[in-house]
Amino acid sequence: EQSSAGTHAGASLSAFTIFKGKAALIIEPFLPKYVKNLNGTSVINRKGTMFLKFMPAIGARKYDYQKKEVVALNATELGCLISLDPNESCEFVHDPSMKSGLEGQIKKTLNIIPIPSQNGGYFFNLTVNNSILKTSERFSLPVTKAEFTVMRTAFSFTLPHIMGWSQAFAMNQATNLQFQGDH
Amino acid sequence: EQSSAGTHAGASLSAFTIFKGKAALIIEPFLPKYVKNLNGTSVINRKGTMFLKFMPAIGARKYDYQKKEVVALNATELGCLISLDPNESCEFVHDPSMKSGLEGQIKKTLNIIPIPSQNGGYFFNLTVNNSILKTSERFSLPVTKAEFTVMRTAFSFTLPHIMGWSQAFAMNQATNLQFQGDH
Amino acid sequence: EQSSAGTHAGASLSAFTIFKGKAALIIEPFLPKYVKNLNGTSVINRKGTMFLKFMPAIGARKYDYQKKEVVALNATELGCLISLDPNESCEFVHDPSMKSGLEGQIKKTLNIIPIPSQNGGYFFNLTVNNSILKTSERFSLPVTKAEFTVMRTAFSFTLPHIMGWSQAFAMNQATNLQFQGDH
Amino acid sequence: EQSSAGTHAGASLSAFTIFKGKAALIIEPFLPKYVKNLNGTSVINRKGTMFLKFMPAIGARKYDYQKKEVVALNATELGCLISLDPNESCEFVHDPSMKSGLEGQIKKTLNIIPIPSQNGGYFFNLTVNNSILKTSERFSLPVTKAEFTVMRTAFSFTLPHIMGWSQAFAMNQATNLQFQGDH
Repeated sequence: EQSSAGTHAGASLSAFTIFKGKAALIIEPFLPKYVKNLNGTSVINRKGTMFLKFMPAIGARKYDYQKKEVVALNATELGCLISLDPNESCEFVHDPSMKSGLEGQIKKTLNIIPIPSQNGGYFFNLTVNNSILKTSERFSLPVTKAEFTVMRTAFSFTLPHIMGWSQAFAMNQATNLQFQGDH
Repeated sequence: EQSSAGTHAGASLSAFTIFKGKAALIIEPFLPKYVKNLNGTSVINRKGTMFLKFMPAIGARKYDYQKKEVVALNATELGCLISLDPNESCEFVHDPSMKSGLEGQIKKTLNIIPIPSQNGGYFFNLTVNNSILKTSERFSLPVTKAEFTVMRTAFSFTLPHIMGWSQAFAMNQATNLQFQGDH
Repeated sequence: EQSSAGTHAGASLSAFTIFKGKAALIIEPFLPKYVKNLNGTSVINRKGTMFLKFMPAIGARKYDYQKKEVVALNATELGCLISLDPNESCEFVHDPSMKSGLEGQIKKTLNIIPIPSQNGGYFFNLTVNNSILKTSERFSLPVTKAEFTVMRTAFSFTLPHIMGWSQAFAMNQATNLQFQGDH
Repeated sequence: EQSSAGTHAGASLSAFTIFKGKAALIIEPFLPKYVKNLNGTSVINRKGTMFLKFMPAIGARKYDYQKKEVVALNATELGCLISLDPNESCEFVHDPSMKSGLEGQIKKTLNIIPIPSQNGGYFFNLTVNNSILKTSERFSLPVTKAEFTVMRTAFSFTLPHIMGWSQAFAMNQATNLQFQGDH
């Protein structure tokens, strides 16, 4: 399975993709899922998150979605990115097998560091070390100030949705609107 | 009743919780409630607010929700937090028994002061003095820049909801959409 | 007709009020109104605006709503307030009788100037000169940084509503959601 | 066809217009369009964009909508404008005939550069060179800090809509609200 610039396999309605020479970065929010428990109360079944998916380039404007590596950022990690100053860096270390038998076998390290020559641009560097498969993947994607501003704006917009606040407020408003229609 | 990290008794759909070594902070918005008066007009029955709930740690990653202390912040106090500069502090003093016979007996002081070693981080210090029970509770919770950015973003999002503007606009839009469907 | 702090005659669901010693300031958005023209297209019947209403104090925590003076700010004037730096001032001069026979008879001048002792606070000074009645009213209301942040946040939230963008987007989304329900 | 200030032919519900002496600038968002494919999945049929339409003045407060020149900005270009510092400039070069037989024949260059005497104001300069018609149109429109703040706020609001995130979230919320109503 291959992809070319502008479109790629696995694209969803809400994906934002940054295509660069050696890799592409797909950014895609995942909202919390709700279920009803036995007494009828809504509870969160799966937490919201922001997926950052890195795909390697396999030719001019072609990317391999099958070889993608994914990092899932939580609310606080998004907060870190939103407030990142031009000279600041941040690092997130994830273990996708946490609390399972494979804990510690896979380590994903996402480093966001300023691009020296650019004011407000950052390198998004992802390293995935897999002790089981004895593999190590590395992505380095330059993100311009304009692209980072799109991320920042979209992350700020998404944060209340990922936290479940937007959903809770919408439920409250729907109740009040119904109440408005009852008179 | 005890709670462990990630979940705790009393959690709601829209709570955001910061778990630290000695205490946890639950942040939870409460939207205004509306009722209809005799001539059919909607009026606000209870004002919106932002609850900050502090729980003491009672072991590794365990918190006691029964011993929580709560501060309710209004729109202007949220405005103070949203615009707090890295070197600024702010203080809110509340009397939960204001205008009752117990006025002046309980004093809650919430101090938000910069963490010296961290750029953009703050200590959230809550002191609750109860003259009746002769007790004094104190919480001190370090909040990182990333966590404070989540708060700031969530508070900015919530402000128009707490003020009732979001609800009023949604009612207006619902009317216009209905009007749109009528042609 | 008189008002006391916290409530006042003429309050609406979406009013935000700042009560001070000599005057109070009610801030209240007014969304655009739509009507359908003969060929079924929605058109704006009245533009959206932000009302700033000044009421004089007539005793301890009492304000006279009948003696209020009102200024209506448009999108660009809100943009001016939203982006005001701590050392900047701005001034809006309005003639409510523009393009009528009374043009030039009433002049409303709203001056927003920094409070010298406060970082981020402003005086909201309104002068209303009426040549017909030979009257001159003057209000001066100190607004703290926290209160101004509430304004700024609420104005930013309201701007797309006043411009009609929010409404147009909601109509578009409603169409798409209906379309979603059709499969 | 001619237009006068405040209204102009071709105005839509969500247009924001800046009227100046030599030209006017109409800013108008266009949301993505969705269609259903054969297996019932929604796909984006046409991407969202922000239209900047320049009209020449043809008299006092009159503008010629027929002689307008249009530039369509994508998400990243909006990100560039949103994060523009007072001393920064940016430039977008567009070829409306890209990938067609006329590629390279028309070149639109939008330059946004600081107004020297104003802190936070910019000139919006558009040059359209047409090699086929041997024409060259040039617009230069001064935008104040207040007007640019309206743009910035409206662009930040619109970005998640143009990216399709707002629509995807609304669909998700509608599903959850329906689910809420089912108990």
